Amino acid sequence: MAKKYDVIIIGGGPAGLTAGLYTTRTRLKSLLIEKGMVGGNMVEAGWIDNYPGFPDGISGFELAQLMYQQATKYGLETLYATVRAIDNQDRKKVVKTTEGDFIAKAVVITGGSERQKLGVPGEKEFTGRGVSYCSTCDAPFFQGKPVSVVGGGNAAVSEALHLSKFAAKVTVTHRRDQLRATPILQEKAFAEAKIDFLWHTVVEAIEGKDSVERLKLHNLKTGERSTLNVAGIFVSIGLKPNTDYLKSIVPLDDLGHIITNEKMETEVAGIFAAGDIRHNSIRQVIAASGDGAIAAIQAKEFITG
Amino acid sequence: MAKKYDVIIIGGGPAGLTAGLYTTRTRLKSLLIEKGMVGGNMVEAGWIDNYPGFPDGISGFELAQLMYQQATKYGLETLYATVRAIDNQDRKKVVKTTEGDFIAKAVVITGGSERQKLGVPGEKEFTGRGVSYCSTCDAPFFQGKPVSVVGGGNAAVSEALHLSKFAAKVTVTHRRDQLRATPILQEKAFAEAKIDFLWHTVVEAIEGKDSVERLKLHNLKTGERSTLNVAGIFVSIGLKPNTDYLKSIVPLDDLGHIITNEKMETEVAGIFAAGDIRHNSIRQVIAASGDGAIAAIQAKEFITG
Repeated sequence: MAKKYDVIIIGGGPAGLTAGLYTTRTRLKSLLIEKGMVGGNMVEAGWIDNYPGFPDGISGFELAQLMYQQATKYGLETLYATVRAIDNQDRKKVVKTTEGDFIAKAVVITGGSERQKLGVPGEKEFTGRGVSYCSTCDAPFFQGKPVSVVGGGNAAVSEALHLSKFAAKVTVTHRRDQLRATPILQEKAFAEAKIDFLWHTVVEAIEGKDSVERLKLHNLKTGERSTLNVAGIFVSIGLKPNTDYLKSIVPLDDLGHIITNEKMETEVAGIFAAGDIRHNSIRQVIAASGDGAIAAIQAKEFITG
Repeated sequence: MAKKYDVIIIGGGPAGLTAGLYTTRTRLKSLLIEKGMVGGNMVEAGWIDNYPGFPDGISGFELAQLMYQQATKYGLETLYATVRAIDNQDRKKVVKTTEGDFIAKAVVITGGSERQKLGVPGEKEFTGRGVSYCSTCDAPFFQGKPVSVVGGGNAAVSEALHLSKFAAKVTVTHRRDQLRATPILQEKAFAEAKIDFLWHTVVEAIEGKDSVERLKLHNLKTGERSTLNVAGIFVSIGLKPNTDYLKSIVPLDDLGHIITNEKMETEVAGIFAAGDIRHNSIRQVIAASGDGAIAAIQAKEFITG
């Protein structure tokens, strides 16, 4: 028979970990289901300077560990599995996973967003052998080597700055002629001698033998094609919410984000969403954590109210 | 002439400090106006176990200092003054304070909520001489002495637990026959030998000579009146939003909280609200901080968008 919980939390990023901290502290029997590594995109965020309480900044990896340690202190259980579906039977929700079915009175969905892929030849083949979506995880492998970062947002520029502490050179390739990153990050990146920028440029292919050796580039303005020798490429071009399995369950926006009200309620009673998976999320650790606390308190009210 | 800013933030609690961190990191010229001490009610919260990232907990005072240090790192200015009014002139907001007028393109209101007073004889007279609203600030003064806490919510029970580390005895007086605090806090308090509870009981007067010596109590169920000898009384009976000056400016709910949407927008373009001052706030540091980040990002969009 399926194991029963008060609350099942899907996703172990800052929203899920905070939700779990709050539900267990209010004595709700809680299960957190994570398909990869706890911390979510926080872990891939490199260095985090804007999570209040850490004036000198903190690595996303370390913050994730601290949050996990805190969330599990009050009895939060963790299951490593992928959620396939949620079967909503009024007050009973059946969460179907690769490790079996689990039953809860309320579900908090915090599955975050996945890194978007480039979709070019060589990307899949060389993933883990020079193609990365996480500079925090992989930067040390590129000590003294040339690397490239693809993208122009906060995440891309943060990755470039983080990589500049390890790599011999960091070339940021961006399809537009300016960055979307906040001015303070841009200033830091422009001031860093190791970081170069290639504007109007897209990656057409990733090549190598055993691992990445070069990128085939295309300048969209001049039409020129060129080759860039790198040992690694860090793809940072956006996020896609993990909501394919939810299409028939809760209303989603055009990009697949879950629509909630300010109480983190979806249209389905007892199903809440929090963090980057939500429509209108600002995609910041502090906001995702705040969402998680709200969802937990609302879930508690739904169960006991 | 009034000094000009991009953003003026009213209130220096977690919502205001996080808003200031975010606006200054995005290079908006920002002024934070605080009428008392930065940290807001966080400082009075005693020990905080549920702010993610601090698995061993952290004192509200220390967390406030860390947040202030971080928020001012990127150029946030602080003014100690009381805001009297906001004069909304379309794209220009004039914030009128006890220290003069200041002009901003956008205003983020995070004034939090003030501790409610008992309104009994002796309360005002003995404030600072035995009557306190902040156990973190004042608990050490009561080492080895008997104290009382008034209230039954999370804040009251947290104060009682904190005080039990210092005081000889802590008597919680509560007008109802059960606590509103979360079960985990209740369990802790019931397990603490130093903490006693007086149910159905209200404080009618606070008496003493130079400082608090005794409370006059009234049992609402039996009608009985009694005297409790204490050296200190910690009042923790609720919060009142600081919005009297805003009545004609932004829509408020019945209790005086500011009504916003999920983007922290009030009905007035360019005026945002964040934290405990908002309608439907869960009154948690993590949620207030998340609100502050959202308000800052929306203020940035309002100014540059």
